[in-house]
Amino acid sequence: MSPGAAPAGQEAVQPLGVAAIGYAFMGRAHSHAWRNVSAFFDVPGIEQKVLVGRHAEEVAEAAAKYGWAESATDWREVIVRDDVHIVDICAPGWLHAEIAVAALEAGKHVLVEKPLANTLAEAERMAEAAAAARRRGIASMVGFTYRRVPALAYAKQLIAAGRLGTVRQVRASYLQDWLADEDAPMTWRLRKETAGSGALGDIASHAIDQVQYLLDDTVTGASGRLHTFVGRRPGPDGPEDVTVDDAAWATLSLASGAIASIEVSRIATGKKNSLRIEVYGSDGALAFDLERPGELEFLDATAPPEEAGFRRIVVTEPGHPYMAAWWPQGHMIGWEHAFTHQARDFLAAIRDGAAPTPSFEDGLQVQRVLAAIEESAAAKSATVHL
Amino acid sequence: MSPGAAPAGQEAVQPLGVAAIGYAFMGRAHSHAWRNVSAFFDVPGIEQKVLVGRHAEEVAEAAAKYGWAESATDWREVIVRDDVHIVDICAPGWLHAEIAVAALEAGKHVLVEKPLANTLAEAERMAEAAAAARRRGIASMVGFTYRRVPALAYAKQLIAAGRLGTVRQVRASYLQDWLADEDAPMTWRLRKETAGSGALGDIASHAIDQVQYLLDDTVTGASGRLHTFVGRRPGPDGPEDVTVDDAAWATLSLASGAIASIEVSRIATGKKNSLRIEVYGSDGALAFDLERPGELEFLDATAPPEEAGFRRIVVTEPGHPYMAAWWPQGHMIGWEHAFTHQARDFLAAIRDGAAPTPSFEDGLQVQRVLAAIEESAAAKSATVHL
Amino acid sequence: MSPGAAPAGQEAVQPLGVAAIGYAFMGRAHSHAWRNVSAFFDVPGIEQKVLVGRHAEEVAEAAAKYGWAESATDWREVIVRDDVHIVDICAPGWLHAEIAVAALEAGKHVLVEKPLANTLAEAERMAEAAAAARRRGIASMVGFTYRRVPALAYAKQLIAAGRLGTVRQVRASYLQDWLADEDAPMTWRLRKETAGSGALGDIASHAIDQVQYLLDDTVTGASGRLHTFVGRRPGPDGPEDVTVDDAAWATLSLASGAIASIEVSRIATGKKNSLRIEVYGSDGALAFDLERPGELEFLDATAPPEEAGFRRIVVTEPGHPYMAAWWPQGHMIGWEHAFTHQARDFLAAIRDGAAPTPSFEDGLQVQRVLAAIEESAAAKSATVHL
Amino acid sequence: MSPGAAPAGQEAVQPLGVAAIGYAFMGRAHSHAWRNVSAFFDVPGIEQKVLVGRHAEEVAEAAAKYGWAESATDWREVIVRDDVHIVDICAPGWLHAEIAVAALEAGKHVLVEKPLANTLAEAERMAEAAAAARRRGIASMVGFTYRRVPALAYAKQLIAAGRLGTVRQVRASYLQDWLADEDAPMTWRLRKETAGSGALGDIASHAIDQVQYLLDDTVTGASGRLHTFVGRRPGPDGPEDVTVDDAAWATLSLASGAIASIEVSRIATGKKNSLRIEVYGSDGALAFDLERPGELEFLDATAPPEEAGFRRIVVTEPGHPYMAAWWPQGHMIGWEHAFTHQARDFLAAIRDGAAPTPSFEDGLQVQRVLAAIEESAAAKSATVHL
Repeated sequence: MSPGAAPAGQEAVQPLGVAAIGYAFMGRAHSHAWRNVSAFFDVPGIEQKVLVGRHAEEVAEAAAKYGWAESATDWREVIVRDDVHIVDICAPGWLHAEIAVAALEAGKHVLVEKPLANTLAEAERMAEAAAAARRRGIASMVGFTYRRVPALAYAKQLIAAGRLGTVRQVRASYLQDWLADEDAPMTWRLRKETAGSGALGDIASHAIDQVQYLLDDTVTGASGRLHTFVGRRPGPDGPEDVTVDDAAWATLSLASGAIASIEVSRIATGKKNSLRIEVYGSDGALAFDLERPGELEFLDATAPPEEAGFRRIVVTEPGHPYMAAWWPQGHMIGWEHAFTHQARDFLAAIRDGAAPTPSFEDGLQVQRVLAAIEESAAAKSATVHL
Repeated sequence: MSPGAAPAGQEAVQPLGVAAIGYAFMGRAHSHAWRNVSAFFDVPGIEQKVLVGRHAEEVAEAAAKYGWAESATDWREVIVRDDVHIVDICAPGWLHAEIAVAALEAGKHVLVEKPLANTLAEAERMAEAAAAARRRGIASMVGFTYRRVPALAYAKQLIAAGRLGTVRQVRASYLQDWLADEDAPMTWRLRKETAGSGALGDIASHAIDQVQYLLDDTVTGASGRLHTFVGRRPGPDGPEDVTVDDAAWATLSLASGAIASIEVSRIATGKKNSLRIEVYGSDGALAFDLERPGELEFLDATAPPEEAGFRRIVVTEPGHPYMAAWWPQGHMIGWEHAFTHQARDFLAAIRDGAAPTPSFEDGLQVQRVLAAIEESAAAKSATVHL
Repeated sequence: MSPGAAPAGQEAVQPLGVAAIGYAFMGRAHSHAWRNVSAFFDVPGIEQKVLVGRHAEEVAEAAAKYGWAESATDWREVIVRDDVHIVDICAPGWLHAEIAVAALEAGKHVLVEKPLANTLAEAERMAEAAAAARRRGIASMVGFTYRRVPALAYAKQLIAAGRLGTVRQVRASYLQDWLADEDAPMTWRLRKETAGSGALGDIASHAIDQVQYLLDDTVTGASGRLHTFVGRRPGPDGPEDVTVDDAAWATLSLASGAIASIEVSRIATGKKNSLRIEVYGSDGALAFDLERPGELEFLDATAPPEEAGFRRIVVTEPGHPYMAAWWPQGHMIGWEHAFTHQARDFLAAIRDGAAPTPSFEDGLQVQRVLAAIEESAAAKSATVHL
Repeated sequence: MSPGAAPAGQEAVQPLGVAAIGYAFMGRAHSHAWRNVSAFFDVPGIEQKVLVGRHAEEVAEAAAKYGWAESATDWREVIVRDDVHIVDICAPGWLHAEIAVAALEAGKHVLVEKPLANTLAEAERMAEAAAAARRRGIASMVGFTYRRVPALAYAKQLIAAGRLGTVRQVRASYLQDWLADEDAPMTWRLRKETAGSGALGDIASHAIDQVQYLLDDTVTGASGRLHTFVGRRPGPDGPEDVTVDDAAWATLSLASGAIASIEVSRIATGKKNSLRIEVYGSDGALAFDLERPGELEFLDATAPPEEAGFRRIVVTEPGHPYMAAWWPQGHMIGWEHAFTHQARDFLAAIRDGAAPTPSFEDGLQVQRVLAAIEESAAAKSATVHL
């Protein structure tokens, strides 16, 4: 029996060993989650075994700081270790496929950051590997973490319960401004060969996943546009060409008949991290903004018109998803704890032998939408069917 | 039969002649109301007969501009004219009592701006005159205009319908900043002999009237404080002493057992005209801010806790007070049209032979609270019972 | 010399006679403006001569209520009257071209509600007539009234002053919900032959005009989509087909290089009248929402990052456009007074012999964009160049 | 040399052992801080040695969950252990004085939750013990944690830098609603003998500390009122009397001449945890609400009036206090991480041999204000001088 799985009537005893690959922004956020998940949720015991990175000294320092027992520089060695049961991939996108497939084949449960991959081909390969691994009882999951923001998880509950009636129109935007300054320097995120795309893959992927997740629906067609407002940026050896988009727009058809607009940008001056989602249905509406992560706006259109209004729900009640584990009402948890919830759900699925979501297949579906948007953008925005 | 009163089964035919006294800020706002009320509401016909002011040339110009047939400089002559049936007093507070009592005695319906008077003695005299006039079928009303802001009128309906359960705690503030600049010049509003008091009479009076109006309740005790932050201001002949308060605070006991806090200021930097009222009851809560006059926040605490939240009601539905007369939903009316509603209600009461509210007695009750706050402030904030 | 035009050094003496055609929603709003404009602004004297409508009795009643001296049922007779100098067309869109061209040819100044016309051909004819009339000193203007909302006029000033730097990305949406209920009945607004289009012409036209107005820019390309969510609605004789769009989406290229997204809807549950515009530039950003018409959000990105934030400007200062004419700071004016400002600007242009904006040519340009969106929508959203 | 203190030119090597007393709400929050502080901040090494509670089994479970090496039931034994260098008191208020004094006398650094004590006498004894300990190099601190919310720490910086000019008026409220339901049961927090007071000590203490902290000022006089709206509540053996206040009001004079109002409540229906602070100065203003903990509103009144407005600063920039240690801009941290910052500052002070703030003396000063409010409330709100 694999570690973490609970035999009937008894608790798992051997802790699950976790290895994380990557210790930058995402590695830090994931480490925080592994360090804290057991303090708030009843999950199988885990051990932060090893943190993997390219630079031996830096990763050793990071491992010590973030609570890992060891550090290492070669992920290939780590993912075959017997004391490692979970591989958590926080490396850049171009490494996802190789590591994930290898880890799955080595029989490890795999959590991989979004987007699933830089290319559709890679994503397909990963989804296949995940499906095969699933048949062997191995879990895999892609880190569309915002599904674990309590306000969004609650939004999904409201929609699933029919409180919005038939959903018709969705508006999803993700606006940031870290590239608004034209002197912001080149990074690997601005080169197509390393990042795959720009705002599209990085943040539109979140918006698209949310639309499909909240509505339990599938995108069937897309008209899209991509644009790079600042074409050259300072590199270490002088100006370099930016080869990915700064902003992206799309209009998406969904299988249900709903229509969603997507607009994402890294040059939306003054917007720091605003993933905003508005859902309009025949009987109600919802709005969420990641800049106010503890709130959900909900309008019940079945109320008398005089009384109807968007109500600001402070999503900190014990009855809200995940929140019973935290503080008394009104005490807001941080962005980082969506990762704690992600770890909780991943561990719970492993324990229960269930397939965690979003699956690699879900990640692949997002990837297909991204590809359709790119294809449409290259064809003067003409609609592409998926 | 007096003009404006409708005999059974038939419409009044002779229009009501209106005379307004004062053509500054309030005179302009009232003129706008008289000019427009008939275009939106079914009210007895009126004629803007005469505008009265001290300076012949200026008042003549104002009269022409604001739609009055004539102008005059002597209110004593005007209020006895046969073609004048309504006297609308927009003059400064120290003139209220004299004009109002004379007009009532001359058999004219009287609308007077708030606060009712500068002193409790004057207010009492006015209330007596109004009561006597009422017995002769003469209407009188004090201009606590904010009762006619649709959002506040709707708030009262919700409270009266029991949607808040037992009201316990009320927070009322009225914050402005036109005196935040210590170089803002002296005016009659900053001298005790002309203004009676400062922020207290000018804006706390509104807050107190709202508390009593919304809760249908009466203040029975008050602890208060007054303070002048900028004690001297530039006058035409050099610095002058400010002899009224810049800000006032009070805690009020109400007959029902509820407690209300009042805080008003003219030096609240950045606040332009923020009359804010929050009402907390056992079953719900309300919040209103005059800087967003078309909105009311309402929380229904009988909803499941997960769903409860302050809902932002856009108060433009036909079912909202006064709003059926205006534009389609979502089209906000301005501050000025609370005066239009006031004119509508005053005219409707005259037509129906009803006693309009707020009455002079209501105005006097506010005055008593103001006096109690002043008395308490002079006694180190010790509570004064009314 | 035509009425209203001021000879050098002297005021115009003969008042301008105004005739309004239409007395429904827009007719009421325009009447309110003509009735009040002179009370707040120094403009040539006007007289509300005649209100025109199809039903003699109803229009007579409306005329009396809204301050018009007379009523009439035949606009052809009215527009040739000597005592009529201004023709204000508030009739439905399919009548615009005929009335406007005739009135211009009769030498009358013409103000026409938006959108300019139901078809591109009509709009072109109107623009030609306006250009010809202009050469004869006759003024014409299309009623994109929101240009006269003080917050939007101030937004334009900030952009023109360079406070946003290079504008890159614009988001404009106009969301309403009066068709969210699938039982809302058929009206002329839902038939292509009378309305031309649905949300597109009615409200996207406002959004498009604002984008071009605020940026002083021109749309050069469009990808669009139209959709009808509720295809049949109850008519007097049973269900009828809705032949216009409920919602529309577009991505627009502007001559400057900026890109604007447009999204409009009549089924956005809970949104009453939300024209929302966000403008992102290299040095700053702006946001406006018509549901809070007295506010403008402005972010100055040249401030230190710690201090930067969207500031909520209460647009009621004397230094704000139009506001010196109104009340003290913090006293919000209503939606209806954008029409008062429109009347003011139209009259001032007539007095000064200037060409008022937005001109019929501006209206035609909006029409071209609408047509491009429709063309793109019919071609699977493929981009159409203007 | 005591553990944690760094000798010149060299890092401390021996980790500081921490013992926490109490494992309920506050114990959990403090544990989270100790568990995470080293992952984000460069602080002396610590070890979570022992968690102390009354019930052996429960505290053992809590210790395992929250990352403590051991658990214990007798705080007296723990505070004298050689491997314990820091005693963190999260026990209820009536235990503060005894534990804190004993721990300080045992030479341990002490962090104690707020309010400092239940009575003024206890608080004075603690402040004396802290002063004596300070002379022996022992640090002590009271947990007014909100000083470590980045938005409030930044607010203090803005005020200290003179950006508000002379501060005149402060409005501080702390509104919750967990007692709005009259069937909410009795707890130790509702009995005077265990809790000392109700909303006053529990939440007004936070508001008062913030006022003194933000303004760097001292309360010199207070008029206050206390009220219990629901006098009896269900206990395990039937209804019991509530002997503390549900709500409290105060008007405070500050040494600088500023005046602050305080209003706190546990029956403010719909308010979950709203500590709201507004500061009005001659040159600017600030507003903060704990229900939106990542935001600060700032108005710079030295800007031209047309441009002035409350700007919503998203307090996630690297230049904001504490935030360089966290995530990229726009990623909000949670309420719980104010405790992480508190641990960071306490550890840094120990390392540097500095006296951490807020000191026990600061806590005592808050206690004096609470006592003055109680005294005033007992004397019909007559002002009490401190």
